[in-house]
Amino acid sequence: MKTIIKSIYDNYRNFTGAGKVADYIAPLANVSADKYAISVCTIEGEKYNIGDYKEKFSIQSISKVLTLAMLAPLTGEELWECVGKEPSGSPFNSLVQLEYEKGIPRNPFINAGALVITDKLLQKVPDLNNRLLEFARSLAGSNDIDFNKEIADNEYRTGERNKALAHLMKSFGNFNGKVSHVFRTYCNHCSMEMNTEQLAQAFLFLANKGINPLNGEQIVGYRDSKRINALMLTCGLYDESGDFAYRVGMPGKSGVGGGIVAVIPGKLSIAVWSPELNKYGNSCRGIATLADFTTELGISIF
Amino acid sequence: MKTIIKSIYDNYRNFTGAGKVADYIAPLANVSADKYAISVCTIEGEKYNIGDYKEKFSIQSISKVLTLAMLAPLTGEELWECVGKEPSGSPFNSLVQLEYEKGIPRNPFINAGALVITDKLLQKVPDLNNRLLEFARSLAGSNDIDFNKEIADNEYRTGERNKALAHLMKSFGNFNGKVSHVFRTYCNHCSMEMNTEQLAQAFLFLANKGINPLNGEQIVGYRDSKRINALMLTCGLYDESGDFAYRVGMPGKSGVGGGIVAVIPGKLSIAVWSPELNKYGNSCRGIATLADFTTELGISIF
Amino acid sequence: MKTIIKSIYDNYRNFTGAGKVADYIAPLANVSADKYAISVCTIEGEKYNIGDYKEKFSIQSISKVLTLAMLAPLTGEELWECVGKEPSGSPFNSLVQLEYEKGIPRNPFINAGALVITDKLLQKVPDLNNRLLEFARSLAGSNDIDFNKEIADNEYRTGERNKALAHLMKSFGNFNGKVSHVFRTYCNHCSMEMNTEQLAQAFLFLANKGINPLNGEQIVGYRDSKRINALMLTCGLYDESGDFAYRVGMPGKSGVGGGIVAVIPGKLSIAVWSPELNKYGNSCRGIATLADFTTELGISIF
Amino acid sequence: MKTIIKSIYDNYRNFTGAGKVADYIAPLANVSADKYAISVCTIEGEKYNIGDYKEKFSIQSISKVLTLAMLAPLTGEELWECVGKEPSGSPFNSLVQLEYEKGIPRNPFINAGALVITDKLLQKVPDLNNRLLEFARSLAGSNDIDFNKEIADNEYRTGERNKALAHLMKSFGNFNGKVSHVFRTYCNHCSMEMNTEQLAQAFLFLANKGINPLNGEQIVGYRDSKRINALMLTCGLYDESGDFAYRVGMPGKSGVGGGIVAVIPGKLSIAVWSPELNKYGNSCRGIATLADFTTELGISIF
Repeated sequence: MKTIIKSIYDNYRNFTGAGKVADYIAPLANVSADKYAISVCTIEGEKYNIGDYKEKFSIQSISKVLTLAMLAPLTGEELWECVGKEPSGSPFNSLVQLEYEKGIPRNPFINAGALVITDKLLQKVPDLNNRLLEFARSLAGSNDIDFNKEIADNEYRTGERNKALAHLMKSFGNFNGKVSHVFRTYCNHCSMEMNTEQLAQAFLFLANKGINPLNGEQIVGYRDSKRINALMLTCGLYDESGDFAYRVGMPGKSGVGGGIVAVIPGKLSIAVWSPELNKYGNSCRGIATLADFTTELGISIF
Repeated sequence: MKTIIKSIYDNYRNFTGAGKVADYIAPLANVSADKYAISVCTIEGEKYNIGDYKEKFSIQSISKVLTLAMLAPLTGEELWECVGKEPSGSPFNSLVQLEYEKGIPRNPFINAGALVITDKLLQKVPDLNNRLLEFARSLAGSNDIDFNKEIADNEYRTGERNKALAHLMKSFGNFNGKVSHVFRTYCNHCSMEMNTEQLAQAFLFLANKGINPLNGEQIVGYRDSKRINALMLTCGLYDESGDFAYRVGMPGKSGVGGGIVAVIPGKLSIAVWSPELNKYGNSCRGIATLADFTTELGISIF
Repeated sequence: MKTIIKSIYDNYRNFTGAGKVADYIAPLANVSADKYAISVCTIEGEKYNIGDYKEKFSIQSISKVLTLAMLAPLTGEELWECVGKEPSGSPFNSLVQLEYEKGIPRNPFINAGALVITDKLLQKVPDLNNRLLEFARSLAGSNDIDFNKEIADNEYRTGERNKALAHLMKSFGNFNGKVSHVFRTYCNHCSMEMNTEQLAQAFLFLANKGINPLNGEQIVGYRDSKRINALMLTCGLYDESGDFAYRVGMPGKSGVGGGIVAVIPGKLSIAVWSPELNKYGNSCRGIATLADFTTELGISIF
Repeated sequence: MKTIIKSIYDNYRNFTGAGKVADYIAPLANVSADKYAISVCTIEGEKYNIGDYKEKFSIQSISKVLTLAMLAPLTGEELWECVGKEPSGSPFNSLVQLEYEKGIPRNPFINAGALVITDKLLQKVPDLNNRLLEFARSLAGSNDIDFNKEIADNEYRTGERNKALAHLMKSFGNFNGKVSHVFRTYCNHCSMEMNTEQLAQAFLFLANKGINPLNGEQIVGYRDSKRINALMLTCGLYDESGDFAYRVGMPGKSGVGGGIVAVIPGKLSIAVWSPELNKYGNSCRGIATLADFTTELGISIF
């Protein structure tokens, strides 16, 4: 494993210029394009880290998995009446789709879906910001995880389309809280900063039937663990999910900060960070790294 | 294996009334609701059959996998410029999506995508109807496979929306042949009749890295085999694909004739037939059967 | 004229039950269904009133004409880069249309368009609420015109879809102010209460080449007066505008409070009030009254 | 009148280069850009012609008014259950709108609506091609009117989007005939060639309460005459109808061959031809001519 990771890292070490660092807000645009880190955790407790794995970055949409995992055990199947479980097709039609499907987003990983998840969480967990930090810290086995206020502020200020989605859902009765409060909370979550070492550890429970291997705690039931993994495989990489499924074959989730985290159920979790994004908003080097990783390991679910 | 299949079959033997037999054309409406068959083939050559596995039914959309598998080796990556590889979201927006994405269907398993596949095939395989029958017969190891003219006629006559899709794609330059000819050919393919024994055998190459185990022939390359399986997992069961992925966890494809075929790469293929459909157009008993099958085998990719 | 109006009034006096009083907010739902008033003003200064013409009601969307008339002279042709001048088709697609046309609403009388008008007005007229009241009072020649705070509060609270429209436009850069502030102002305007006597007088400038006949003030230029009238004819009655054009043939604007005001350029203005609405949201008795009015007068522009 | 027309003609005589001749099919692209003709007919029988008024051109969408006028007296109000009477908004959403409104086009002047009109006509008038020629010849008082087979062939061959619209309507049950036959007939009608002299005369019945002034024949009832005029005012110039209403103020209909015909009810009809089109598909010089014409006459319905 160590050899494989080292070899992939060396191979892609100078692989920059293929994409573009997210620049819709300044704090993301300022991240250096050549950052590169890989971290792997196995359920047996082994850990492999290489590159900038100590440096924290904005996890962005990866936080959508954390909030879903936090909410799932607090609700039953009725959660799925407020948000779907199916892939969404291209993002262009999120408003059209919401309109047509009466305010029910297609899945928890598109922005509309994640906003509903945050809204529902806030009904049940009033002190959500702190609780989510604790949740992430406990999963990652590290207290050094926080929100980045500057990024959250920027996200909030520029998030007009997200506010439109929230108000549209509210018009259909599928949104309870105050839009500004829920969206601000959502922005906080997206601004959470972790490094790959923390991220790989934090997602290991999804490779372990929902149980945090650090302390044996059942984070989500096995059923929900499978469901979240299936959702990541079919919808975790925006409009590149189908391609990712075939090339990488692992349930995974990406963020525009350049992070991707993925799991092999029963085996391991892996986090990669490299800020340059392809046209779908996914880390170029991250995808290449993961594709080589499963190929080298000889693992393919297909 | 035999015990598992027998037990599932016995369990669901009287499980009818949960759905509705397809009735948009008469020949489908007349099929008896209590038909039920299961067939399994392993790559080691074992076969298990139970129920009405000798009785043929209309494979309908399952034929979309066969035409894609026939076309894939005849083209290179340029195929994916004419049709996408991503899930499509709900069918409601097929026209909207085609309009927005300039006539490029999201994947080969929605009708628009399968029409493009048929159109492309006809450019390369003039005698396509006969060649597809030969293709299916060779894969199934059985010469007793044919089209059902009555069903094809009905499909053609009532297929106005499909013709609209084809003309819209033609307006965008993503369709070469004459719509009536291509669509008639497409209807023939959908009308193909097979039984579960033939169907399970015919799909075994997708569990075998693209190689027909009956004769060692490379039907599609390993890369394409993985790609087709990934497409089946993310888009094979219409708007229930996400749920199927999580509950069953096998790449599969359904048809409104009540058939579902699925594979476990490296292991086996399984075909189920039961005509009652749920609201998504998938066989109720078929899905229940496959969910129990993977649970009993203790297999889950998630 | 007096005879015609009296005869129409008598004819429709007991004409209730054909529609439904707006009930999406309580203060509108509580209005008595049998209210009925007609007021006519000619540019020669004659006035005819009958029925409940002293009783004030919520003018709702009729206020969109007042804000447009207030803004037009403050801007030049660049106004029409932010909002279109064309009919919009059915309301269902306001979000779709905004998305497709990059945040530019089709005309100033759909909600999105009126929100843009209010936003632009607020940039130029900081004390807009008071100034709009003065504008309406001056046009109507009456100081007894105010907003209804209860209605405005209700509109604001239930206006999620309007907020979604505003945020979507903001995401396209076609909205400058704070959504909550602009929308609150918009709700105030919709809550303005006038009676038919005031309303007919207030709209007479549009029959008089843009000049307020009460004081000779040029409210809008002749060019803008024609433009506003053309917009009312093509888009003034929601999705019934085409039918209204043919049956009534006057530029007009309706509101869900049951008011309709219309003009015959060069001649007169007429306001009708009757709260029961048809399925398009227009006053049933109001339309019947206006249709008879133009028929009796022998006036048809077609 | 003669002076006004002469003066406008002289003014715009060298006004070319502002637009672009339609070039989607060769026979239209080959028309000389500097053609220019004006013809006026009054209901008193006066006629004024200037420029290339003897030269025939393809009337294209102007034929939609003729087929509507032919069908209207053959049906009652039930016609309006198959096609709407409201403006359609921008053409982009014709497919979306048809989908959303269950196959009912918004009005008879968008392509989908005209296809429905042709379909309905063919049910009632089997020998429609000849009958429509006779209808046009009788209205124009000239036998020298025919279809242009080359244009019709080209329209048919390139009309994939129109075929898509027809099949989509058929899927909703709002289309009876064979698409290829109905669309071929529609293409014939669009290919009809007339000169401005014939065109102005042919539309005079719409300025004359539905009566052909040449022979006193009631072509359509007064009610339908008003309705057709209202439809032309609100939907006759594609996505420039609102602007045309305000600038010109006459009910009118344009075609991509560069023709525009318009009427002043109770007074006259006017036809203009100049092939260069603006971005909306309307004749640049045609619109300028008509705007000046109503301004000079001091006529404005607004």
